[in-house]
Amino acid sequence: MTGVDIGGVSCPVPLTDSERIQLGHGSGGKMSAALLRERFLPHLGNPYLGQLGDGAVLPLADREIVVSTDTFVVHPLEFPGGDIGLLAVHGTLNDVAMMGARPLYLTAGFVLEEGLPLDTLDRVVRSMAGAAREAGVPLVTGDTKVVERGKADGLFVNTTGIGLLEPGPHPAPDQARPGDLILVSGAIGRHGMAIMAAREGLAFESSIESDTACLVPLVERLKERCGPGLVTLRDPTRGGVASALNEIAQASGAGMRLDESSLLVPGNVAAACEMLGLDPLYVANEGVLVAIVRPELGDAALAALRGHPLGRDAVLLGQVVKDHPGYVVLDTAIGGTRVVDMLPGDQLPRIC
Amino acid sequence: MTGVDIGGVSCPVPLTDSERIQLGHGSGGKMSAALLRERFLPHLGNPYLGQLGDGAVLPLADREIVVSTDTFVVHPLEFPGGDIGLLAVHGTLNDVAMMGARPLYLTAGFVLEEGLPLDTLDRVVRSMAGAAREAGVPLVTGDTKVVERGKADGLFVNTTGIGLLEPGPHPAPDQARPGDLILVSGAIGRHGMAIMAAREGLAFESSIESDTACLVPLVERLKERCGPGLVTLRDPTRGGVASALNEIAQASGAGMRLDESSLLVPGNVAAACEMLGLDPLYVANEGVLVAIVRPELGDAALAALRGHPLGRDAVLLGQVVKDHPGYVVLDTAIGGTRVVDMLPGDQLPRIC
Repeated sequence: MTGVDIGGVSCPVPLTDSERIQLGHGSGGKMSAALLRERFLPHLGNPYLGQLGDGAVLPLADREIVVSTDTFVVHPLEFPGGDIGLLAVHGTLNDVAMMGARPLYLTAGFVLEEGLPLDTLDRVVRSMAGAAREAGVPLVTGDTKVVERGKADGLFVNTTGIGLLEPGPHPAPDQARPGDLILVSGAIGRHGMAIMAAREGLAFESSIESDTACLVPLVERLKERCGPGLVTLRDPTRGGVASALNEIAQASGAGMRLDESSLLVPGNVAAACEMLGLDPLYVANEGVLVAIVRPELGDAALAALRGHPLGRDAVLLGQVVKDHPGYVVLDTAIGGTRVVDMLPGDQLPRIC
Repeated sequence: MTGVDIGGVSCPVPLTDSERIQLGHGSGGKMSAALLRERFLPHLGNPYLGQLGDGAVLPLADREIVVSTDTFVVHPLEFPGGDIGLLAVHGTLNDVAMMGARPLYLTAGFVLEEGLPLDTLDRVVRSMAGAAREAGVPLVTGDTKVVERGKADGLFVNTTGIGLLEPGPHPAPDQARPGDLILVSGAIGRHGMAIMAAREGLAFESSIESDTACLVPLVERLKERCGPGLVTLRDPTRGGVASALNEIAQASGAGMRLDESSLLVPGNVAAACEMLGLDPLYVANEGVLVAIVRPELGDAALAALRGHPLGRDAVLLGQVVKDHPGYVVLDTAIGGTRVVDMLPGDQLPRIC
């Protein structure tokens, strides 16, 4: 406790906001990055954690594995297109796949709030089971904790995924170089706006459904088609496509030039974003991937994506460039250009 | 929502307690077991999850790994002898070690409540870093989520541990057979009572400190000394020694006979338990292990344990017997006998 000693009486001084956790620390934007850099890495730093991806590549016996962990706190627990269980399986499988590994195993750790209807738990568990079965990845061990009413929000669930890396080069954020092409596997903004609409009780002409999906089949197609020419993979969740590309730009030291007119935003998502003053580039996706491939592989990669239902709306969004290293620049549909920066903080809390 | 249709008006009926999560579901006792059996396994069942240990043994390439996951929700976050960070590292390392594996990697997933003082987070992260460093196990990847004030309780943290199994037989709960000896590595009841005392503001003559510790060195000593004669290992956390032994009795189908007079309970723990009407056999430990060894290895195992500071108070607590299969029976210090059953539910919520 911060305190001031006044005439022998210790008087507590309220902590300022800068000394406390704020919602923006969970946004996946600049504040999250600062929290990680200032509060976690100085104590926990090691070469694996320093990879700073959505997971870590680890040697194990004579192989390499990938491990990724994510806690899901989405609110509400159920939303059009999915629920927290579906998201928890898809999200972690996708993170493992984005590191170039084939997911093999999942774990689950639940925090349940006293009073949670068992029916809700059943639906969530069934969602997880269905998603795990569909992906062919068993949930191998778990843990359940219960906290008193008012000490959590229904349920939170952590999933950790383990995958095996085939020998050879793997996609990584620092591999992008000028000339490489930037692909996006589908229309953007659906998950974040589905959550916003469900949370705020907004009714749009057509209800927006989350795009939550297991991206493993898309990744397998890209790996098969592009081999080592598949340079970088990322699922643009918290912080959206803009944040994912900024992270890649920073990791690789390359610039990125995007073409806004090639970006696909569903009509209902665009309308909802406009109403709420949000930029779809920053809105979370849970069933979309960003792939960077060597220049000669653009057509092959697009064809590979479009050959699968999850990738049928895949587009070429832009190119890695020599200019403005570390920055992402967008050619807008109306003929201008603007820098697409990292978000500072708190656009949409608790979307995953 | 449960509802009744009355004259065309749908009238919500309050859910009864049996349709909702209760604190006892998180106790590690009978209610936890029922929740797992009724709500998780029917949907998620697979041979790995069916192992029902504190982790799973998994094939990976041509090796076997062990994975264990645990979410920590202990309240208060800091207590005499440790904090949630120390516990989160020790607890998961211990679970991996109890499966007979050498822990190699840890992940961490945080849920932070808006308003948490960053100083508190710093202390917790430093604790985790120190414990991981001491154990020589790097924390390789992590995740941080933030929820609004009042939607969590300071911080929760999930840790998942990955370990490598050496080829050969491994300790497992179903391996115990009549004649085997039951050892306990130290005095019991300290963690649970330290938490109770801190939470309730109870002051005892001497403050009770949690025993939280990394048990990997004890396990390595036992493995070295006993080889395949080390039959079963368990860390008696939630539900205490009584619940751990009941689980082993049920898994192995063997009976167990314990000698109360050999049990070591620190004086302050015994006093606190008596005051609160608790049985130390059911109180959580975080730095104690239960080992079952073949009859001829009792002395060697005791010596191995006592040769390390964490095991200097190790005792022979009892024996696996042919009688009363699946049940644990205690010869009391006053000359009687009683069945030591699983707890139904909610002795001490949120102790880990």
